Amino acid sequence: MPAPDSLGAATPASAARGAGKGAQVTLAHGSGGRATAQLIAECFHRHWHNEWLAQNEDATRLPALTPGHVPVVATDLFTVTPLFFPGGDIGTLAVNGTVNDLAVRGATPRYLTVGVLLEEGFPIATLETIAKRMAAAAAAAGVAIVAGDTKVVERGKGDGLYLAVTGVGEAPVEPVWGAAAIRPGDRLLLSGPLGEHGIAILAARQAVPLETEIVSDCAPLVSLIAAMRATGAPIHAMRDLTRGGLAAAANELARAARVGMVIDEGAIPVHPAVAGACELLGIEPWHLTNEGKLLAFCPPESVEPLLAAMRAHPLGRQAAVIGTVVADPHAFVQMRTTFGGVRLLDWLHAEPLPRIC
Amino acid sequence: MPAPDSLGAATPASAARGAGKGAQVTLAHGSGGRATAQLIAECFHRHWHNEWLAQNEDATRLPALTPGHVPVVATDLFTVTPLFFPGGDIGTLAVNGTVNDLAVRGATPRYLTVGVLLEEGFPIATLETIAKRMAAAAAAAGVAIVAGDTKVVERGKGDGLYLAVTGVGEAPVEPVWGAAAIRPGDRLLLSGPLGEHGIAILAARQAVPLETEIVSDCAPLVSLIAAMRATGAPIHAMRDLTRGGLAAAANELARAARVGMVIDEGAIPVHPAVAGACELLGIEPWHLTNEGKLLAFCPPESVEPLLAAMRAHPLGRQAAVIGTVVADPHAFVQMRTTFGGVRLLDWLHAEPLPRIC
Repeated sequence: MPAPDSLGAATPASAARGAGKGAQVTLAHGSGGRATAQLIAECFHRHWHNEWLAQNEDATRLPALTPGHVPVVATDLFTVTPLFFPGGDIGTLAVNGTVNDLAVRGATPRYLTVGVLLEEGFPIATLETIAKRMAAAAAAAGVAIVAGDTKVVERGKGDGLYLAVTGVGEAPVEPVWGAAAIRPGDRLLLSGPLGEHGIAILAARQAVPLETEIVSDCAPLVSLIAAMRATGAPIHAMRDLTRGGLAAAANELARAARVGMVIDEGAIPVHPAVAGACELLGIEPWHLTNEGKLLAFCPPESVEPLLAAMRAHPLGRQAAVIGTVVADPHAFVQMRTTFGGVRLLDWLHAEPLPRIC
Repeated sequence: MPAPDSLGAATPASAARGAGKGAQVTLAHGSGGRATAQLIAECFHRHWHNEWLAQNEDATRLPALTPGHVPVVATDLFTVTPLFFPGGDIGTLAVNGTVNDLAVRGATPRYLTVGVLLEEGFPIATLETIAKRMAAAAAAAGVAIVAGDTKVVERGKGDGLYLAVTGVGEAPVEPVWGAAAIRPGDRLLLSGPLGEHGIAILAARQAVPLETEIVSDCAPLVSLIAAMRATGAPIHAMRDLTRGGLAAAANELARAARVGMVIDEGAIPVHPAVAGACELLGIEPWHLTNEGKLLAFCPPESVEPLLAAMRAHPLGRQAAVIGTVVADPHAFVQMRTTFGGVRLLDWLHAEPLPRIC
C-alpha cells in the first residue's frame, strides 16, 4: 500500500474498492489511513504512473541534473472557479501554469509535485477526471508528476478542490534570463492576443450577461520557448502573463530592472470578441489574466529571428513587437494610445476578478 | 515591486502600507495586483529574505547541486487545526514536516517553496506571526525559503490558512535508503516516545475532556539523522512517523519491502501522560501522529553505533530497538504484547483524528 504522504503504487485489492459511482471524498480519505491510500491509488497513481512516483516513499529521489545546468523551482496554488471552463480545467491550468513559470526562466521543466486539497463531499469521479487531465497536460509539457500529498477538509472549509503544484526544471548556467538582464533599447515581444483566459472565466461564471465564443488560452509554452531558444538569438528576460496581465508584468519588470517602457497600444493583439467584452465591462485587455502568453525582452537584433520563430509556432502566430525599453529612473510604463497620446499603463491595486487561476 | 507569483523584495513604499493593526486579508490580496505584492513584501519577504527569494522572478534559479548527489523532492499540504497548539504551530509544522520527509531519504534539505492559501478575513498580524515562525524553523533546519505563491479565497471557502510546502534536497548517489533495501533480520530503531503530537492536538481542540502537559514533538530530524549517518553504520531505510503513526509506517514498509515485522510492545517508549490519555480515549499510541520521530531499519551490526548516536542527541534520548524484520510473504506486522501474546498490528481505515497536520 502506498504511503499516506506519497502517491504510491496501487495494489489490486485497494484499486478495486471505494470509488463506486457517486462516491464522494470523506474525511477518512485525508486521514492517512487505508482510505487515503486507496484514494491515492485509484485517482492519482493509476493515471500519473512513472518510475519516480513508484518509489512510494516520503520523498522522491530524482536523476542527476544535466551537467552544466542548475535546478530551477517554481510553485503555484490553483483556486480557479469554476473548476472546468471553456478551454481548460483546474488540473490542466495547474500543470501549464507551473511549467510556464519554469520555461520563462530558460529552464526545461522536468518534474512536478502536486498537493491536492479536497473538501469533504467532492465527487471522486470528478477528482479522477481532473487527475486524467493533469496526466495529459504533463505528457504534453514533457514533465512527470513525481510526488504528492492529499488532504481533506470538512464541508465549508474549502471549495471542492484546490491544487498546489511545484515544478522542478534545469537551466543552463548561462545565459541567465531575468529582469537584471533587461537594458534600454530592448524590444518587447508579445506572443499573442491578450485576455482570453480572463474573459473565458468571466463568461463561465455567468456573473455578467456575457455571451462569447472565447476560450481560455491555457497552454504550455515549453515548445514555443524552445523554438525561440533554438534561433540562438539573445533573449534577456521573459514572463508569462498570468494574474495582473500585461500591465502587472511590465510594471514589475520595469521596477525590478530600473528601466522605463513605452508600449504601443495599436501593436497589442487582442481578439475582437475580447475587445468587445472589455468595452462592455469597462476593463482593459492588458489587465486581464492569460494562461498561454509570454512577454519577451531582447536586443533589437534578436527581433527578426525570434519573431519568425514565434510566428512559425502554433502558440505564436500573432506574435508582435509591442514596445521598447527606455532609460527611466522612475520605471514608468507608458502607453502610446491609438489616438496618438501617451498615458501611464497602471498596475491595479486589485484585479477585476479573484479566483481566476 | 515583487511579482505577484513570487515572494519578492519589498520597496519601502509598499512595506509602509496596508498592514495596520487589526488589518485582515481581503480578496484584493490574492488578485495579483499591488495589494498582493504588498502582502507578500510585508508578511513574507521581510522575514524570509535570502539571495534566491530576492531573484523576484516567476521561478527561482538555484545553485548547482554538490557533485555526486541527486535532487530529492517532497511535498506536503498542512491543514492542522488549531493553527497554534502546544509545542508548535502550522508554520513550524510545515517546515519540519517537509524537511523530515527529505532527511529520512538520506537527503540534506536545502530549499523550500511555500504556497499560502488564505481565507478572506484572516488577520494579517497572525499571518506575519506564522511567517516568522517559519523563518525560525527554516533557519533551525538549515533550509532557505526560495519561492512562493499566495492565493485568497472567499469567506467560507477555506479555514483561515492552509500551507503547501515543497522541499528540495540533495542525497548522495549511494546508498539509497528506502523500502527496497529492507532485509529480513534488520532491526527497527524508534527515536523516541509515540503520540505526543496527536495528543497535543486533541487536547488543544478541547473536543474531549483531556487535560495534559503533553506538547507536540514537532521538530526537525535533520541533525539527528546527520548524527546517525556520521557513525558510518549501514542504514537500510527510514520513515518519519506522521499521519497513521507507527502502525501505518510499519505496514506500508512491510508491504513495499514484501517482508514481515515483529514489534515488541514493551520496547515502545510512550510518555506516561500519552499512555494515560490513550487509555481514557480508547486509542493506541502507535496509531497517533508524531511530528519529530523516526523509525529506522538497519542490519544488526548497525544497532549499537546507531543507538549510541541517537541517545547522544536531544531528539533521540529515548531511542530504542523495538522489533525485527522477518521473512513473510503476507507482509504481516505482528506485535508481541506485554502479556506474552502475539497480535497483528493493524493499519486503520481512517485515523482517529482528521486535520492533525
